[in-house]
Amino acid sequence: MLCLQSETNPEWIDIANKHHDKILIDHAHCEKKAAFFALSMINRYPDRTLLVDKMVELAQEELEHFDAVQKELQKRNITFRPDEGSEYAQKLHKLIRREDPAKMLDFLIVGALIEARSCERFSLLAKSATDETMRILYKSLLASEAGHYTMYTDLAREYYPAAEVRARLNEMAAAEAAIVRDLKSLPTMHG
Amino acid sequence: MLCLQSETNPEWIDIANKHHDKILIDHAHCEKKAAFFALSMINRYPDRTLLVDKMVELAQEELEHFDAVQKELQKRNITFRPDEGSEYAQKLHKLIRREDPAKMLDFLIVGALIEARSCERFSLLAKSATDETMRILYKSLLASEAGHYTMYTDLAREYYPAAEVRARLNEMAAAEAAIVRDLKSLPTMHG
Repeated sequence: MLCLQSETNPEWIDIANKHHDKILIDHAHCEKKAAFFALSMINRYPDRTLLVDKMVELAQEELEHFDAVQKELQKRNITFRPDEGSEYAQKLHKLIRREDPAKMLDFLIVGALIEARSCERFSLLAKSATDETMRILYKSLLASEAGHYTMYTDLAREYYPAAEVRARLNEMAAAEAAIVRDLKSLPTMHG
Repeated sequence: MLCLQSETNPEWIDIANKHHDKILIDHAHCEKKAAFFALSMINRYPDRTLLVDKMVELAQEELEHFDAVQKELQKRNITFRPDEGSEYAQKLHKLIRREDPAKMLDFLIVGALIEARSCERFSLLAKSATDETMRILYKSLLASEAGHYTMYTDLAREYYPAAEVRARLNEMAAAEAAIVRDLKSLPTMHG
């Protein structure tokens, strides 16, 4: 799916289905962190007009999704607990090179990879969640995650040659696949 | 105006009018930081449902304003430069007590004070800006800043006794007034 080079371990969907409450809490945090990430990109690259435009749009959409998920938590009387952090995201961020122009490309690709992986996992939940509301929720969010992936890769090609983007995307997707293979199948969106 | 205990030095409006470009750049950063602040409140207090609801709403509105201001920068061909930080906001944040429950109250009051001061300065610009587009822009944003102030103080009263909120708001508004008296009248929204 998209650029991903490995599939989620089938064990994850069983774990996720046993803990819809934890998946929803973690998912709300993911949407919030995606909005933070978009705003941080504006902080880092305020003079890149197209990037700023796209990141505002993205942050707004992530906040809408955050709101939908946290309202689902409220409906289910689930207490929204603090974020416990994500090993997956931390490991991905370590791949980002330190100096620009390489750094901005890597940030955009990390954004793309997280969206692609979310899209894969949403599609698993949309198909296999044991609860109909969950299936409907994740089906409704699927398309926009794929759209966000495309937005990040389009942005990357706007500022870097397509060949360079393709090569670095392949390289980082391979690293992402290795990170995913080592995950412990936790009841979190990228666990 | 609102809870403020001092008026902006008249010198500031002259400086601001000589540097509409800098005011707009700083203003865009302020809207972005206000969205960050709202998201940070969700991070800190995820289990306070009403606070979470209000902070999502607020972050969305701040992002809409950010977008309006950065589109104005684009129209004027002004390069959106990195944020240089705000002495005003830093000094206000230092007033926040370290431990909850006092900490959350102080965060809400800092939010309220920043919105109130922005409201005062927007009203100065709406009246006295030498450029009509600026007057219209700031007039259109005025009401929502006042609304945000009220939202923060309403939230504070939701979680703390009204007498405690009033006392602490008076105390922090006095400190804010002293901070504002010492400002150097820079061409920034809170300069």
